[in-house]
Amino acid sequence: MDHPDEPETEYGFLAEVLTDADAAAFVHVADRFDDDLRYLTRFSGPDRAYAFAYHDGDALLFPPSLFDEQAEREFPGTAVVGYGDRAEPDPVDAVLAVLADRDVDGAVAVPPAIRHDVYARLSTAGHEVVTTGAVESARERKTEREQRCLESVEHAAQRGLERAEAVLAEATVDGDVTRWDGNVLTTEVLRREINAELSRRGVDPSGNSVIGAGSTCADLHFTGTDGIRPGESVLIDLSPRGPHGYYGDVTRTFTVGSPDPWVETAYDAVLEARETAMSVLDAGAGVRAAAVHEAASDVLSEAGYGVGDVSTGFYHGVGHGIGVSLHEGPGLTDDRELRPGHVVTVEPGVYDPDRGGVRLEDLVVVTRDGFENLVDYPLSLTPRAADPS
Amino acid sequence: MDHPDEPETEYGFLAEVLTDADAAAFVHVADRFDDDLRYLTRFSGPDRAYAFAYHDGDALLFPPSLFDEQAEREFPGTAVVGYGDRAEPDPVDAVLAVLADRDVDGAVAVPPAIRHDVYARLSTAGHEVVTTGAVESARERKTEREQRCLESVEHAAQRGLERAEAVLAEATVDGDVTRWDGNVLTTEVLRREINAELSRRGVDPSGNSVIGAGSTCADLHFTGTDGIRPGESVLIDLSPRGPHGYYGDVTRTFTVGSPDPWVETAYDAVLEARETAMSVLDAGAGVRAAAVHEAASDVLSEAGYGVGDVSTGFYHGVGHGIGVSLHEGPGLTDDRELRPGHVVTVEPGVYDPDRGGVRLEDLVVVTRDGFENLVDYPLSLTPRAADPS
Repeated sequence: MDHPDEPETEYGFLAEVLTDADAAAFVHVADRFDDDLRYLTRFSGPDRAYAFAYHDGDALLFPPSLFDEQAEREFPGTAVVGYGDRAEPDPVDAVLAVLADRDVDGAVAVPPAIRHDVYARLSTAGHEVVTTGAVESARERKTEREQRCLESVEHAAQRGLERAEAVLAEATVDGDVTRWDGNVLTTEVLRREINAELSRRGVDPSGNSVIGAGSTCADLHFTGTDGIRPGESVLIDLSPRGPHGYYGDVTRTFTVGSPDPWVETAYDAVLEARETAMSVLDAGAGVRAAAVHEAASDVLSEAGYGVGDVSTGFYHGVGHGIGVSLHEGPGLTDDRELRPGHVVTVEPGVYDPDRGGVRLEDLVVVTRDGFENLVDYPLSLTPRAADPS
Repeated sequence: MDHPDEPETEYGFLAEVLTDADAAAFVHVADRFDDDLRYLTRFSGPDRAYAFAYHDGDALLFPPSLFDEQAEREFPGTAVVGYGDRAEPDPVDAVLAVLADRDVDGAVAVPPAIRHDVYARLSTAGHEVVTTGAVESARERKTEREQRCLESVEHAAQRGLERAEAVLAEATVDGDVTRWDGNVLTTEVLRREINAELSRRGVDPSGNSVIGAGSTCADLHFTGTDGIRPGESVLIDLSPRGPHGYYGDVTRTFTVGSPDPWVETAYDAVLEARETAMSVLDAGAGVRAAAVHEAASDVLSEAGYGVGDVSTGFYHGVGHGIGVSLHEGPGLTDDRELRPGHVVTVEPGVYDPDRGGVRLEDLVVVTRDGFENLVDYPLSLTPRAADPS
């Protein structure tokens, strides 16, 4: 993948958060798996606790031991309060010490997902603690640099799709199985080839490579092993994560050999739903998010598929926001307006547990008067052979 | 990798936990990134909330929407309370409804890492909520099946090392740079080759492939780009995660071309520290964990390296437990006895930010009267060419 500049974080919004919450400081303590903390620190730290604090315009990172150098490299805030320089090695104690040093005795704002034991320690230390979802909200609208991060990982994800197509194009039909490279072709064989390509492009498969074949396409997050039979749908949904923490998300559906009639019909319906959803997004910022889902649903319903709380048909939302979390706001079933910088998947699909499933997923940036599709990938059930170049 | 049977979870310990905590039920609500929840459910769910509850001998999983089938496939407990069958789709509400249904009005035990907002909802619903670290403790001693999971991912990790060696053996010296496949060889090029191999073996690199070259070996978790120069140390520390959720962890150090004298000397010292640490572990269960660290430290100190809170020398613990978390108990600096089924890394190293770093890491299962090393990988600074077979 390309390596765009690391995204920075504009900390200014935290000043407003403190005013709104009537709090003196914002604090978060978590580990590498917390996406609010990743956004606030841009630090890809380890699986043990580290802390972030914002007070009086200063954004501070308290890394765990052995991570001072990496923290200095990655944190775009005011200062890294290095482990070696701290009176208190524990990150919660270190934050409390800095708050005491700065005479902070007002309320402290924290995210709702903060660990209960951390919340309790802040509270026991005498701080009123108030929760705020403001960081998750701030993450929704992406800056230009964040959009380029998303684009770069989406670019790598599409190379994964190309690898999948090459394998499927090389596969041969042998009675009711398909073969590749001398063996029966399964979703697991295909997943490994795809994930190897994603890794080679510098992104992490992140356990998110969903590959369904026939009936397992209807199991929306299938990561198991299933034989790939001729003519059935092969659904490939890739969501790798880039080194900057941003996820990609793209889906295409193919077949080996002539598609079964159900698959062909479903593909056409999903293509039309996709086009209709995109046409709603054409209006850009100001569109009601749920209008995109409703438009796609109407197309699929008119084509004869069940929609909503059904076991066959279109039974998920048509899209979700994406960023340092794979799933974040806004959702395309939300009753709210889309705004410039929102980045959402558009992923209509239809499924029948007895027959298969088809999904097509793109990733779009909402702009003032339209959208930019970060996916530039063909739409065809027939897999293309690898480019010989 | 091999696919050993999915590890089961013995829920019996939770009955003791409830007795000790004087609680009527155990509850956890989190997402795929929570390792206690992974251990309790064996469910590789999504990045949104799902719940586990234990009451009266029943282990219950409350999956999020669209994940009922996967939950049924993966959960080894008593029952999946399917999203479609529930009166309350929200997992916290669903747990509260089941507790009410079962007339549970006593205290509810939860892990200390539970989200504060979940804790608050349980509390607001009228339950006394008590935290317990018992799940994290229970995770420390691995069953035979868990050990085989760890072994299988460690096996895949070693194939990653082999790929690294093949690249390094093919690399050529060109003045003060090394070249491979027509380009300057960097840690990022090497990382991508390794991660592709890990993916091909069915494990996830998980953003954990630490590759240092020369001075960046001293930055213990270097995941950036650095040119690999002739004779300097190339440190490769791989910690992929298997589909069952268990991590591997293995480190070897190599050079391209003749090693610099500092590297050669450091390698010999680390080799000796490794052997000494292993000889302490030879006694098996009952050994004090910290004795392993102290023995390795003594060897490196006698060899003239700084030890402990230093900027040059051996400045980390010699090992840590591993399981569904990459880092868990017991740590090999802990003042406690090792027990059968503890699985720990053994990873002495020495570093000099101006010269390089050497680390050698194995993964051992503590047994009643010794240990089993899950790593079977050569120890040599000189990279081996790929096996032509």
